[in-house]
Amino acid sequence: MKIIVIGASGTIGRAVSEELSQRHEVIRVGRTRGDYQVDITSQESVEALFAQTGEVDAIVSTTGNLHFGPLSTMTDSQFNLGLQDKLLGQIRLALVGQHFLRDGGSITLVSGIVAQEPIAQGVNATTVNAGLEGFVHAAACELPRGIRINLISPTVLSESLAAYGDFFPGFPSVPAAAVAQAYRRSIEGVQTGRIYPVGY
Amino acid sequence: MKIIVIGASGTIGRAVSEELSQRHEVIRVGRTRGDYQVDITSQESVEALFAQTGEVDAIVSTTGNLHFGPLSTMTDSQFNLGLQDKLLGQIRLALVGQHFLRDGGSITLVSGIVAQEPIAQGVNATTVNAGLEGFVHAAACELPRGIRINLISPTVLSESLAAYGDFFPGFPSVPAAAVAQAYRRSIEGVQTGRIYPVGY
Repeated sequence: MKIIVIGASGTIGRAVSEELSQRHEVIRVGRTRGDYQVDITSQESVEALFAQTGEVDAIVSTTGNLHFGPLSTMTDSQFNLGLQDKLLGQIRLALVGQHFLRDGGSITLVSGIVAQEPIAQGVNATTVNAGLEGFVHAAACELPRGIRINLISPTVLSESLAAYGDFFPGFPSVPAAAVAQAYRRSIEGVQTGRIYPVGY
Repeated sequence: MKIIVIGASGTIGRAVSEELSQRHEVIRVGRTRGDYQVDITSQESVEALFAQTGEVDAIVSTTGNLHFGPLSTMTDSQFNLGLQDKLLGQIRLALVGQHFLRDGGSITLVSGIVAQEPIAQGVNATTVNAGLEGFVHAAACELPRGIRINLISPTVLSESLAAYGDFFPGFPSVPAAAVAQAYRRSIEGVQTGRIYPVGY
């Protein structure tokens, strides 16, 4: 398969690219690194990306920014950051990318455990991740030509515990390599409209 | 209680206002009608609204626009309409309104059955409604001073069947008066972080 991985230089993206490249042609895309660059908050940038890559068998996203901060001081502009980046950014990859997918292709996006399990300062994250779950559930019902769409929802990464562990007290952690297996399950499997929790 | 109802001239808003006004002081707010007017997509407008009403005991929303259309031709701009209106618009009411709520006050927002049950052309609606569920789950964990937040999720309204019934084949319908009871349950009850499904 020809697979495009957006966010390929991140912790999950590197693990996913490494796993998939054992059996597939992987196009690594990052904001500033990789085979191609993209800004998922820009329609023009996403259109330019797919114009360069041409048709693919799988679109994989491991990226998206959120706003973290207390609800009591959160502004609408801060909240909109997550809506425009991790939520609409990944949805944009699906809206544009659907037209560049071969029959039977797949889209795999990323959310996270806070969709179900709120954490301190994480209201934006829970909202965005829950919205992504809705998008994948609904889009799976409409995508044509056997195109599938799934969502990977990991708990906190073991690799990120030093930086973010205090925000996930008592949460299980999972290595990025295990998250990569969930991506493989989505891409090489047959299911659609699935949320794959990883590590919880 | 002093209760502000945003969307008071809509089908649900009228039923909610009628129900609550039997026991409470109700301030009716609409886009163009009511005691006050507001555009929930505008930060300035929402701030001006609460500056006019002052402190309240309950903030009630029965409003929010979405984009309906096929996924295959949906653009990012169309998708963003729902994100900016029903999703961020209602979240803005909570972000601004939290500072105008008396101790033990409440916020009650509206989503809908398509959060869980996708319909044709409803990808934006499922995403937005699912996002609202996430917001309410997470915000309930952070709101101070005994302030509660809940979400009302009705199936299609009986009053809307003539206009929208074809989009809800085989779905149960529910009269707006029953939805108003769910709002009463949220406002006069003790629960927080709850999604109240109505009619399904």
